[in-house]
Amino acid sequence: MAKEIIIDKPLDMHLHLRDTQMLNLVAPLSAKYFSGAIIMPNLIPPVTDKDMLIAYRERIKKAIGDEIFKPYMTLFFKSDYDYKFLESIKDELSAIKLYPAGITTNSEGGVEGFDIEKLKPTLEAMSELNIPLCIHGESNGFVMDREAEFIPIYEKLASSFPKLKIIMEHITTAKSVEALERYENLYATITLHHLLITLDDVAGGMLKPHLFCKPIAKRPEDRKALLKVALSAHPKVMFGSDSAPHPKHTKEAPGCAAGVFTAPIALPLLAELFEEHNALDKLQDFISTNAQKIYNITPPSKLVILQKKQMDIPLSYGDIVPMMAGEKCSWRIKEIKVK
Amino acid sequence: MAKEIIIDKPLDMHLHLRDTQMLNLVAPLSAKYFSGAIIMPNLIPPVTDKDMLIAYRERIKKAIGDEIFKPYMTLFFKSDYDYKFLESIKDELSAIKLYPAGITTNSEGGVEGFDIEKLKPTLEAMSELNIPLCIHGESNGFVMDREAEFIPIYEKLASSFPKLKIIMEHITTAKSVEALERYENLYATITLHHLLITLDDVAGGMLKPHLFCKPIAKRPEDRKALLKVALSAHPKVMFGSDSAPHPKHTKEAPGCAAGVFTAPIALPLLAELFEEHNALDKLQDFISTNAQKIYNITPPSKLVILQKKQMDIPLSYGDIVPMMAGEKCSWRIKEIKVK
Repeated sequence: MAKEIIIDKPLDMHLHLRDTQMLNLVAPLSAKYFSGAIIMPNLIPPVTDKDMLIAYRERIKKAIGDEIFKPYMTLFFKSDYDYKFLESIKDELSAIKLYPAGITTNSEGGVEGFDIEKLKPTLEAMSELNIPLCIHGESNGFVMDREAEFIPIYEKLASSFPKLKIIMEHITTAKSVEALERYENLYATITLHHLLITLDDVAGGMLKPHLFCKPIAKRPEDRKALLKVALSAHPKVMFGSDSAPHPKHTKEAPGCAAGVFTAPIALPLLAELFEEHNALDKLQDFISTNAQKIYNITPPSKLVILQKKQMDIPLSYGDIVPMMAGEKCSWRIKEIKVK
Repeated sequence: MAKEIIIDKPLDMHLHLRDTQMLNLVAPLSAKYFSGAIIMPNLIPPVTDKDMLIAYRERIKKAIGDEIFKPYMTLFFKSDYDYKFLESIKDELSAIKLYPAGITTNSEGGVEGFDIEKLKPTLEAMSELNIPLCIHGESNGFVMDREAEFIPIYEKLASSFPKLKIIMEHITTAKSVEALERYENLYATITLHHLLITLDDVAGGMLKPHLFCKPIAKRPEDRKALLKVALSAHPKVMFGSDSAPHPKHTKEAPGCAAGVFTAPIALPLLAELFEEHNALDKLQDFISTNAQKIYNITPPSKLVILQKKQMDIPLSYGDIVPMMAGEKCSWRIKEIKVK
């Protein structure tokens, strides 16, 4: 009989669902396989108040229909969020996402510079209200150095606000893994693609736009450091796909946007990866249990039964090309049980 | 009156002219503006004997028609070239190009590994016959490290064959610039694009396939080191465009081939760059005089008069998209005088 593994309440702690047509296409693909996901707020315009947040959540719910799936909503960080506002929205909110200005897709309205004094009132309020801060941690320096250059800012935030949970989103470097160990209140998400690829896969042979993402895939020793904490399900590390759909014509053109689409194939590919490294027993913690503890959440019940049986990765989902389109995965999703 | 500068006998010491239709399209674009060029032998199959070399030269001559232009022909390195063969072809030959196997376009038949003992008879014959050895110096390691990892091989070759002129082709790193200084018989070509861009331009914002090349563009400090020796026209450094045409549909598709097309715009863009750095007085040496001395050649007479007057870089040449397509250059070619 084919080998099987059951994942209880899989969570995607960093997900882009976009809006309108794209939302309707991709939301069901996550909702089918995951119990819940942290939903990124970088729409145009970004999600910055309660009405926008609730309206977006309702659009997501409409897009997923009857699927059992909890969208954990986030706000786009602004330094004028005060205690009163955050208290009023706390029950609807799972985290606030901070983007340095202009670093990634729709981040133009993000934080310019990092004047901690200016951010202090909002961060203190978040700390008191126990609202996690998710950060896209990149400087505007040389593309291979951006994440490492941001680490001192993570450290300053972590030491200045010791009760604030700070999530280093989609970490890609050995240096970020090291930083994680130095501060009790630093946590991290890791994507599937950064566990699988390095810059060699993007640009070492032919150029591969469907593997082009921000932060850009780094060096082999960086990937190795990420694998180490993911495969051991380090308790401060969570799976976050950063699955970021772009229509095929925008990915396959000069001036291709950054983003890798992995949501519907992430679970089988993670099973394949963890099995290859004899770490299947750590998959549950990496995909769900760690995140439940870090965010203090109880996602809706869903059991995903993964089976070691070959699957063809689709060439596309609508007009979105997934990572490894047309390739094989040695695991597949056999069954989903909703209690 | 607009500023002008005259380049006497401009040379492109690293050029891909391809074959058939592509040859007919691109050869006239180099022949118009340059006195001569070192022609890369990586056709399919590669140029490896006298008949192939002469036949390719004749196809180039046919493609360029009446233009005054000398194609300096090369052979694709093979370790079974012996003294007798090389002596028989010496008068037709300007250099031999060595590719490590599988590193760039059509390099599949290149040298596997670097067993100096195996290469010795050919390299000794080249040394005695004073035939320069041009090398695409990259290992098969991580894409950002490949050139630096190859430097020990350059050093071993340079010290083992002290009378052999070794050209480090299209260098991209500060480490290669340093190696150049350590061995008397090491020389280098530098492309236009590696003087203008870093990996940030290729993948720091959106992904730019038309700037994707091998060796891949490196770090800002690498570009700075290249600029230093190019702008000072270091006597061991020559301009070699590595202009490498690929049809638009292959550059703008997933799995885009490596290569930047610059031949017809290289001279005005070099004038712009050298003027920006107050180095116009070094342009003649970088574009021609250094190469004449290193290769001991006297190219056919041609004076290219460059003028500081804005030019639009074409969107395409046939179905080839040049670097900076649609952008402006503050210099243009005013006139070409053939004595």
